[in-house]
Amino acid sequence: MAGNSFGTLFRYTTWGESHGPAIGVVVDGVPARIPLAEPDIQHWLDRRRPGQSRYTTQRREPDEVKILSGVFEGQTTGTPIQLLIENVDQRSKDYRNIADRFRPGHADYTYLKKYGIRDYRGGGRASARETASRVAAGGVARKVLGTGISIRGALVQIGPHAIDRAAWEWPAIEENPFWCPDRAMAARWADYLDSVRKAGSSAGAVIEIVASGVPVGLGEPVYDKLDGDLARALMTINAVKGVEIGAGFAAAGLAGEKNADEMRMQDGRVVFLSNNAGGILGGISTGQDIVARFAVKPTSSILNPLRTVDVEGNEVEISTPGRHDPCVGIRAVPVGEAMVACVLADHLLRHRALTREK
Amino acid sequence: MAGNSFGTLFRYTTWGESHGPAIGVVVDGVPARIPLAEPDIQHWLDRRRPGQSRYTTQRREPDEVKILSGVFEGQTTGTPIQLLIENVDQRSKDYRNIADRFRPGHADYTYLKKYGIRDYRGGGRASARETASRVAAGGVARKVLGTGISIRGALVQIGPHAIDRAAWEWPAIEENPFWCPDRAMAARWADYLDSVRKAGSSAGAVIEIVASGVPVGLGEPVYDKLDGDLARALMTINAVKGVEIGAGFAAAGLAGEKNADEMRMQDGRVVFLSNNAGGILGGISTGQDIVARFAVKPTSSILNPLRTVDVEGNEVEISTPGRHDPCVGIRAVPVGEAMVACVLADHLLRHRALTREK
Amino acid sequence: MAGNSFGTLFRYTTWGESHGPAIGVVVDGVPARIPLAEPDIQHWLDRRRPGQSRYTTQRREPDEVKILSGVFEGQTTGTPIQLLIENVDQRSKDYRNIADRFRPGHADYTYLKKYGIRDYRGGGRASARETASRVAAGGVARKVLGTGISIRGALVQIGPHAIDRAAWEWPAIEENPFWCPDRAMAARWADYLDSVRKAGSSAGAVIEIVASGVPVGLGEPVYDKLDGDLARALMTINAVKGVEIGAGFAAAGLAGEKNADEMRMQDGRVVFLSNNAGGILGGISTGQDIVARFAVKPTSSILNPLRTVDVEGNEVEISTPGRHDPCVGIRAVPVGEAMVACVLADHLLRHRALTREK
Amino acid sequence: MAGNSFGTLFRYTTWGESHGPAIGVVVDGVPARIPLAEPDIQHWLDRRRPGQSRYTTQRREPDEVKILSGVFEGQTTGTPIQLLIENVDQRSKDYRNIADRFRPGHADYTYLKKYGIRDYRGGGRASARETASRVAAGGVARKVLGTGISIRGALVQIGPHAIDRAAWEWPAIEENPFWCPDRAMAARWADYLDSVRKAGSSAGAVIEIVASGVPVGLGEPVYDKLDGDLARALMTINAVKGVEIGAGFAAAGLAGEKNADEMRMQDGRVVFLSNNAGGILGGISTGQDIVARFAVKPTSSILNPLRTVDVEGNEVEISTPGRHDPCVGIRAVPVGEAMVACVLADHLLRHRALTREK
Repeated sequence: MAGNSFGTLFRYTTWGESHGPAIGVVVDGVPARIPLAEPDIQHWLDRRRPGQSRYTTQRREPDEVKILSGVFEGQTTGTPIQLLIENVDQRSKDYRNIADRFRPGHADYTYLKKYGIRDYRGGGRASARETASRVAAGGVARKVLGTGISIRGALVQIGPHAIDRAAWEWPAIEENPFWCPDRAMAARWADYLDSVRKAGSSAGAVIEIVASGVPVGLGEPVYDKLDGDLARALMTINAVKGVEIGAGFAAAGLAGEKNADEMRMQDGRVVFLSNNAGGILGGISTGQDIVARFAVKPTSSILNPLRTVDVEGNEVEISTPGRHDPCVGIRAVPVGEAMVACVLADHLLRHRALTREK
Repeated sequence: MAGNSFGTLFRYTTWGESHGPAIGVVVDGVPARIPLAEPDIQHWLDRRRPGQSRYTTQRREPDEVKILSGVFEGQTTGTPIQLLIENVDQRSKDYRNIADRFRPGHADYTYLKKYGIRDYRGGGRASARETASRVAAGGVARKVLGTGISIRGALVQIGPHAIDRAAWEWPAIEENPFWCPDRAMAARWADYLDSVRKAGSSAGAVIEIVASGVPVGLGEPVYDKLDGDLARALMTINAVKGVEIGAGFAAAGLAGEKNADEMRMQDGRVVFLSNNAGGILGGISTGQDIVARFAVKPTSSILNPLRTVDVEGNEVEISTPGRHDPCVGIRAVPVGEAMVACVLADHLLRHRALTREK
Repeated sequence: MAGNSFGTLFRYTTWGESHGPAIGVVVDGVPARIPLAEPDIQHWLDRRRPGQSRYTTQRREPDEVKILSGVFEGQTTGTPIQLLIENVDQRSKDYRNIADRFRPGHADYTYLKKYGIRDYRGGGRASARETASRVAAGGVARKVLGTGISIRGALVQIGPHAIDRAAWEWPAIEENPFWCPDRAMAARWADYLDSVRKAGSSAGAVIEIVASGVPVGLGEPVYDKLDGDLARALMTINAVKGVEIGAGFAAAGLAGEKNADEMRMQDGRVVFLSNNAGGILGGISTGQDIVARFAVKPTSSILNPLRTVDVEGNEVEISTPGRHDPCVGIRAVPVGEAMVACVLADHLLRHRALTREK
Repeated sequence: MAGNSFGTLFRYTTWGESHGPAIGVVVDGVPARIPLAEPDIQHWLDRRRPGQSRYTTQRREPDEVKILSGVFEGQTTGTPIQLLIENVDQRSKDYRNIADRFRPGHADYTYLKKYGIRDYRGGGRASARETASRVAAGGVARKVLGTGISIRGALVQIGPHAIDRAAWEWPAIEENPFWCPDRAMAARWADYLDSVRKAGSSAGAVIEIVASGVPVGLGEPVYDKLDGDLARALMTINAVKGVEIGAGFAAAGLAGEKNADEMRMQDGRVVFLSNNAGGILGGISTGQDIVARFAVKPTSSILNPLRTVDVEGNEVEISTPGRHDPCVGIRAVPVGEAMVACVLADHLLRHRALTREK
């Protein structure tokens, strides 16, 4: 239990370093007889893959997933599903010069202090490459959730530039390299990121994930609240520094009668007149859209030199000319979607366990 | 595993409803031979107790804790510690009139939908009363952490009014009923909350918890990151809608070279020149102060009438004249401290398991 | 996670020492809307209670259970159920003289070595008194299982005297103080235990638990096999040294064609022509009776003096004149039933989670 | 959590079917900086490998293990270790004829009933092939335990023929294909198994595992007792029907003064005068040898025809002419060792967490 597993009933474990022969994930707790094939997972991996625009790292990984177990004649069998992704474009030499100095904002220092050893090649387990395994697991989770539940993500802020929520159009996210739902802002971001890159700097971002079609009742009270598990899930994505649900931090500034989502009847069903709760009350889904946002800090690997120390305690400078994303937040969108999918799949199964109709 | 337990090695389970005979918590995983007596826990419960100022609920609960097991001759024995708190001031009748209607912003609707039954008296398990058990567990966690680690909380925003961080003085938090570290702001909050109450409304808040003296190395990579577990821990406190670590959401707007905490040597030790990381890199503590903030929504139980529906599907209004806190965020400070203490105690034990001294 | 919890979805945690103010158990994961009241649990506690015949300890504990939480208007609410049993007949002085010497066959030595401290009064947590909490949890588990599943236990051997299985009659177990299904053997055991007691000695026993009505399909493959969990559950009862399922150790001596339970059709349903499997194949229930047996060693607290050492390393002798059971196996019958009930309740919920109706 | 993981802190997850492309195991919770290379694990796999004598299946699997992650420059890094074993000699066609009928004594019926689908090729996950992954995990566990703890297994009974314990010599187990410590009995077993095979039948076995050098104090009281976890670990090995510790079932027939292991001082240390406890008291290791035995039923896949039914409910007969072991107990010896190693490694880490010296 050194922390490489996620979930209770729908539970997966990831493994593999950025520069080893392969990475992968074993997903346990998938119900039997769900149709599953490699393209179901590849679809989501392709959306996360680096090198698809000039705004993401130029490392080129085909990220082809292979199903090694748990599927028989096109259906899940209820046994663990091992998904393997070979590492192809590793370039270990790129990392030789940072083997002995701690990159500010990275886990280099804490890993070495904790373990007394670290695989410095590309960050080892701390590499964003681990998130490919999350996306693969998320692909399986979506199959467990079924087609009635959709999970979509969008980038709502890059650096200091937030979108105009009134301009939100879901189709727009497929039309620009930023998953930006505000077409006008997408153009501004392009310019902004070009200037950031030219300045040898990097930018942070805020991502919003929306899950629609989630039935009322998912989540366990008190410690296994749905929002508690979402907060953990999203906070464990590399570089994330904050998570909020619904109105989030803004709720602190609202008056009580503004914040509480009032309820009415419509066509014989309960409806809410707003969604400040982000679809969760008391840790349990309300049936409204679940809305979660998370903040990603700017990439710490930048061209601009930073003061740091090396493993022998010498004060040095470091500059990272490599193939890094100027804004890691962009590729965090499919990762955030995957984590939300995994949390929901887990809670769907947990809910069934305790509330099956007789 | 219906979600009433928290922690992996230092693990506690709470039980009890707001209006039952008692509430309590059983803490498992406490190392043996730690001195522990009731006052060690009572001290923290007293800080959370309601009715201590006009800004918190007037429900009067002495919240006297009894240790029923796990301590022998003043020391822990390594066996489970049952802490029991009797409910005294219950006034069940107060809740009779809300038994059949869903309070907006509360878990009434989701609980009933999930379970088909709910203990409507005072919110049952969803009551803030459950947080007394968290504070009791936190008292034990602090003993596990020892005196070298201190955990302090402060209120940094009520409604739209945030403190001036330059005016932060820790001693101030003991001088006003808000745990406010900015003396000037404390006075403004008093006026503001009086006006909020007079208006039949309520206010949200932001709380900041700072843990000092945490050694480098706590936290497990990937899914059991220290910040991931803190995010879950704080998000599971009633009414919390957002959590952030260090620079948090503001990090999204910083340039990479501004955000990355640079490192130098001082007296032969590594020091960081800033703490945007909030004391955590790659999910592992850096040795700097751990800084976590969380947002609490405004109390949903307010005098102002809100539109809602009842259990039979009729559209009704609801107004809550009871003894509720105008700003539940105030009493959330000791609860946040307790949750941080429990997360750290758990990770301290987990770290020991895998990293025995050479 | 210091080991005082049992189960995954139906999960309980026991607490309390033999000579503290109370013992108890908190049961989490009970589905909502199951009718539950104190007599449902008291019924099973009464069957385990000491002092009901001259063959069990004369310690007199009323063992009255109180439900402190989780039940509202006669039904479970899905929240944790705290069951509390006050300790009444404690006689701490009885144990003063064994505070500093290790009783052979007891956990005195290992507890002190592990923890550096031990509550020597009555064995503390190692006391058989903890099994009252198991029986209480088992009472709740039976309610979760419903009336279609029955779990019964019988004593099939005391000392070297095993029953004649051909003489097995279930009603007989209520007619003698041994839960003996073979009426003739019950009389012999009475004489035998009188002679054992007169000799200042004690006797071991073998208990058999039979669960009928268990549906096919419970149990998870590989590590969470139903028989694996039963083995752990029964082995954790005090003084148990062996567990077997179905033909058990005797299976090692059978020819393959004798051991394999052949299958036929009867009234359109699959039937097995024997039950050497004890109702479990590949870790999954077959629908036949589940049959588990466990061996209990003879009471280690005996009048006959035994050689031992004290906490200061002196070689001493010890003799235990107290109120101990000459054969602890007798009172282990309701405990074994309870553990089987808890395992089945847990697996019933787990099965539901992963096997949605078609 | 569908049951393919084992352990709490030292925790591994196995995956893969008998007839898929590969099987494997991911081991999480291994402390950093332990030297580890493929031969460390291959050594144990080679001992389990089939086809090494005429008494085990003639399926020829090289079982070459590859380390895909978690090791850097010859040392563990504290990250998950993925071990992969490719399947080579699969012969899927052998299993075509049993796809639609349930083999008595196998999990065919229960798997299909539970999941509604089953990978019939070679038993899928229920195949003994899964135990190769256990042996691989056990190889890692032994490295965690270090050289001070040795774990050895022996076969003590085949069919009705038990060894003479007075003739026990550990070196003998390397001299015959049965891991038999009694040289005379090894010769008799050879004859016996030849006759069993000639008769188209199969034989069961009893295996004994002895762990030496285990420090006093491992194991958690009550539910996570060391013997409880050993019982579960061994019972989850395919075809196991019983587990016992120390004197085991025979303890039921001993007088109290015979069974209790008396204690004396020797060279300033506590010694026990016997080991009926099998090295465990109150669930905690005593420092003596840990002794566990388990019974394996006779192979259910035999040439002799057995009555069964097919998936459509027809009464049929089945006979298995394949390449099966006449006594699967033989190859269970290294598997039992591996499981004991994993339980001990887990408890060693758990013990450290709660009892680190200050």
